[in-house]
Amino acid sequence: MTKLINDRYLRALFKEPVDCTPVWMMRQAGRYLPEYKAIRAEAGDFMSLCKNADLACEVTLQPLRRFDLDAAILFSDILTIPDAMGLGLYFEAGEGPKFKRPITSKMDVEKIGLPCPEGPLQYVMNAVRTIRKNLQGRVPLIGFSGSPWTLATYMVEGGSSKAFTKIKKMMYADPKTLHLLLDKLAESVIEYLNAQIKAGAQAVMIFDTWGGILTPRDYNDFSLQYMQKIVEGLLRENEGIRVPVTLFTKNGGMWLEKIAATGCDCVGLDWTIDIKEAKSRIGDKVALQGNMDPSILYADPQRIEEEVGAILQGFGGGSGHVFNLGHGIHLDVPPENAGVFVDAVHRLSKKNQ
Amino acid sequence: MTKLINDRYLRALFKEPVDCTPVWMMRQAGRYLPEYKAIRAEAGDFMSLCKNADLACEVTLQPLRRFDLDAAILFSDILTIPDAMGLGLYFEAGEGPKFKRPITSKMDVEKIGLPCPEGPLQYVMNAVRTIRKNLQGRVPLIGFSGSPWTLATYMVEGGSSKAFTKIKKMMYADPKTLHLLLDKLAESVIEYLNAQIKAGAQAVMIFDTWGGILTPRDYNDFSLQYMQKIVEGLLRENEGIRVPVTLFTKNGGMWLEKIAATGCDCVGLDWTIDIKEAKSRIGDKVALQGNMDPSILYADPQRIEEEVGAILQGFGGGSGHVFNLGHGIHLDVPPENAGVFVDAVHRLSKKNQ
Repeated sequence: MTKLINDRYLRALFKEPVDCTPVWMMRQAGRYLPEYKAIRAEAGDFMSLCKNADLACEVTLQPLRRFDLDAAILFSDILTIPDAMGLGLYFEAGEGPKFKRPITSKMDVEKIGLPCPEGPLQYVMNAVRTIRKNLQGRVPLIGFSGSPWTLATYMVEGGSSKAFTKIKKMMYADPKTLHLLLDKLAESVIEYLNAQIKAGAQAVMIFDTWGGILTPRDYNDFSLQYMQKIVEGLLRENEGIRVPVTLFTKNGGMWLEKIAATGCDCVGLDWTIDIKEAKSRIGDKVALQGNMDPSILYADPQRIEEEVGAILQGFGGGSGHVFNLGHGIHLDVPPENAGVFVDAVHRLSKKNQ
Repeated sequence: MTKLINDRYLRALFKEPVDCTPVWMMRQAGRYLPEYKAIRAEAGDFMSLCKNADLACEVTLQPLRRFDLDAAILFSDILTIPDAMGLGLYFEAGEGPKFKRPITSKMDVEKIGLPCPEGPLQYVMNAVRTIRKNLQGRVPLIGFSGSPWTLATYMVEGGSSKAFTKIKKMMYADPKTLHLLLDKLAESVIEYLNAQIKAGAQAVMIFDTWGGILTPRDYNDFSLQYMQKIVEGLLRENEGIRVPVTLFTKNGGMWLEKIAATGCDCVGLDWTIDIKEAKSRIGDKVALQGNMDPSILYADPQRIEEEVGAILQGFGGGSGHVFNLGHGIHLDVPPENAGVFVDAVHRLSKKNQ
């Protein structure tokens, strides 16, 4: 495989010395870029874009041409596994993801089989292989998956939700069925991420978008223990090189110690926690990713730079920090503001290393 | 005024001795009760129900007939102030509240006047007076308002939101305009709650439903400082009796110390924080309200009682705890499960006092 030219992202995750703080953005390939919209229009719907390796590669590389980003992330969806399990993923304009056949009973859960990563999910591996080849070692490629709990919420709710009453009903009235589902999902995520690693992903990230809606005890039982199982089942080395894993629970700021104790390399932070506090709590154990509010990209350049500076100062210098937004970039952010952000991270962090 | 027969709720807020832990439920008057649905159908739309003092009184009292609750809460909406400011509140089935004339510019904010509590908001005061009279001293009556930040999110977004991009755009691109709006709202909430107190509310609560979407710094600047201003401007005594104030920021578990430092009497907790941890952090300063996940009411009686027991044990006995759900009761909960919950709180807490 080609030698990695810019390895800042991996070095920061392993807390090795870096010349400046690496930066990437969640959803850096996406609708805020006009060149993305053009490819999306060519592909037709969102899943057709995900399933076309060449187009998925193209949109993955687009933000790297505009901005000095230190990592690429596979262009895909967090709901590929449930889709491959037969739930029928589709998207309605302005409504987010939906499933044609949501999980409504124990029998539905029992029927679910684990989709083979090189079978119904092969399109994801093809995208990974194509992107890795086309990156030519410029920056590392991040693979990803949704967490079992987060996947289960969509599978049981049938799509996005505000109150999560269906999955919580299952959790409190029939916890065994939910655990059976989460077990299957954890197994499937392990196979899926390991296949991404074998296909060329140099780091992986698990998005636990909805872990933060749980009580502390339920977070342990229904989300964290399954992420722990995944961390334990992942290939942590490929081609003789370590493969780091980042766990990100949105609204998980109160549970950082527990997340760090899973054995992951890095904990993702949303913007509701002060990074200084996060570092003092878990900075000796893991690297940190985050944590600017993506909405700050609506502000003028001066305010964006001020916020970048405040977060860098909060972290306090040295390695172990991957700069990122605390959630995906908003679709109506001017692309030039993302450029201001990326450049500010590099420029303002140079003196701190 | 009639002497209060059951004063457990007030005593707990002041950390005075109680015979058992008082309990009420957010949205205890509402759609999970068939008798509520009947009155709602009679009234027509939701705001017509709020504006009819006799019907608002009737639905406020309904849950007290079914359950041994220790407080009544005014039946109203958190968006009465923006409606009275002229934004045109309306409700679309299944979509939550909306405004016909949302705030879109500095000029919109400048035009806003403070609505007189005994003018366009007199229907709320009439409801308070009617309810207080009809309660005949059985339990105390809680008045309430949304927090300035929470009201502003609805006013700028035009309704409910998922990503809050409009208000965050204003916050980061034009903070002065937002501060002007928040100032007017804080003034208005002070007048509104003081009028409720004068009309007969024996305690007040401020709901900061959306404070938890902010960074720690922005929470201080755009939400907490305005709640602090309200706490400082409230009548803390009426008819010679102290009037306690509870602040509730959903997803505010990381900022409990700051909330407790405003001078409020009680801090409301959602279910994402362990009440034991909350008590160790701020239990010497304030009373605590909370914090069962409302979804647990979907479970069987045994599981509901187990959770009530775990929370009581977490608090660790003694006064200073008002039991509640961490958010409003879900509309599809069987009413008998709410009864199991209320009875369990009283029964299981008797030995701990």
